[in-house]
Amino acid sequence: MKQNTKYNIKSNLKRLFTYRLCLIGFKRKGFDRIFSHNLGEEAGVTAEQVRKDFSFFKIRGNKKGGYQINDLLRAIDEVFKYQHNQHVVIVGMGNIGRALVQYKRFLLRKMIIVASFDIDPSKQSRRWGIPVLPLEMLDDIIKKFHVKVAIIAVPEISAQDVLDRLIDLGIKGFLNFAPVMLKTPENIIVNNINLCDELESVIYYTEKVIE
Amino acid sequence: MKQNTKYNIKSNLKRLFTYRLCLIGFKRKGFDRIFSHNLGEEAGVTAEQVRKDFSFFKIRGNKKGGYQINDLLRAIDEVFKYQHNQHVVIVGMGNIGRALVQYKRFLLRKMIIVASFDIDPSKQSRRWGIPVLPLEMLDDIIKKFHVKVAIIAVPEISAQDVLDRLIDLGIKGFLNFAPVMLKTPENIIVNNINLCDELESVIYYTEKVIE
Repeated sequence: MKQNTKYNIKSNLKRLFTYRLCLIGFKRKGFDRIFSHNLGEEAGVTAEQVRKDFSFFKIRGNKKGGYQINDLLRAIDEVFKYQHNQHVVIVGMGNIGRALVQYKRFLLRKMIIVASFDIDPSKQSRRWGIPVLPLEMLDDIIKKFHVKVAIIAVPEISAQDVLDRLIDLGIKGFLNFAPVMLKTPENIIVNNINLCDELESVIYYTEKVIE
Repeated sequence: MKQNTKYNIKSNLKRLFTYRLCLIGFKRKGFDRIFSHNLGEEAGVTAEQVRKDFSFFKIRGNKKGGYQINDLLRAIDEVFKYQHNQHVVIVGMGNIGRALVQYKRFLLRKMIIVASFDIDPSKQSRRWGIPVLPLEMLDDIIKKFHVKVAIIAVPEISAQDVLDRLIDLGIKGFLNFAPVMLKTPENIIVNNINLCDELESVIYYTEKVIE
């Protein structure tokens, strides 16, 4: 897969998620049907972009009288439907890791955190709904639950090591909270969430852009 | 400020944050100097883009023998330096809110969470380093600490109400964790982090893109 494709699909997905939120919003307001230009306006893109994205994800609907909102929501759910449950592991049980294992919304979307891992034995003795295991058990758990996705919530200093180890064990996709540029081979996807950067970016606006 | 400008600056900032992570990486490997094409390659953009972004943020350096990495890092820090401390409030002390008030990295970047708020009195009695206050005290705290930025970590059902209330109290910038499209007037910035979407996006890759 080329780097370029990676980035394009990332933007496509991002817009698809935005459409979903907008559609839920329209539904809440009592709408049943919607035109691509309504949805585009709400999502901040053109109607053409909406139709392009729908076509990319093979989402169809009756365009003459507008789309049925429920049909669209079902079609979007279909995009993220797989043949088996989505099992995820978390490595690093600091503040972020602990918040994520307790984050109920993942379950609503059928993303199941099957286990968490930490090198600190004192954390292993505690439980936050799911077991906290030593890293030596990664291999067993990944095999047992056919895990392909991991969340990295370790300090930046150990993030690359943890990533390399997980790749060796067959993990293909990562959600990374460590503020560091991780090196990955091809065909591995890393989605970075940098909380400091996100907050700093808001502050920058309020200080230097908005007057 | 036009919507377009908003989005452009957002991408500019995102790349600037990436450059910073790359520069820290280069430094760790023992490099002192760097050319824009090295940095571009590491960050996944062209050398021209790097120079454009530096020019946008008024970051200068000796281009002949390459940039001094330390100079660049200092110049990037300068972009985010303001005349006063950056005070932030958090509304919603669920799992995410609690993780964020304990997230030490914000402090390292001089972003100070001065107080958190929750409607649940049982949470108000507990303390996670900073006070958890009832929403009635928002006005006092925002005035006292000259707060312009808030983190929204409430359930989606109350997110718009909380946002509207905070805007009335003078908050200009938001980091929002509630999975909902928030309506904002002009000159207000909302940066959304949707944890489910981020994880689902990784899963989509591992299931449907990577082979």
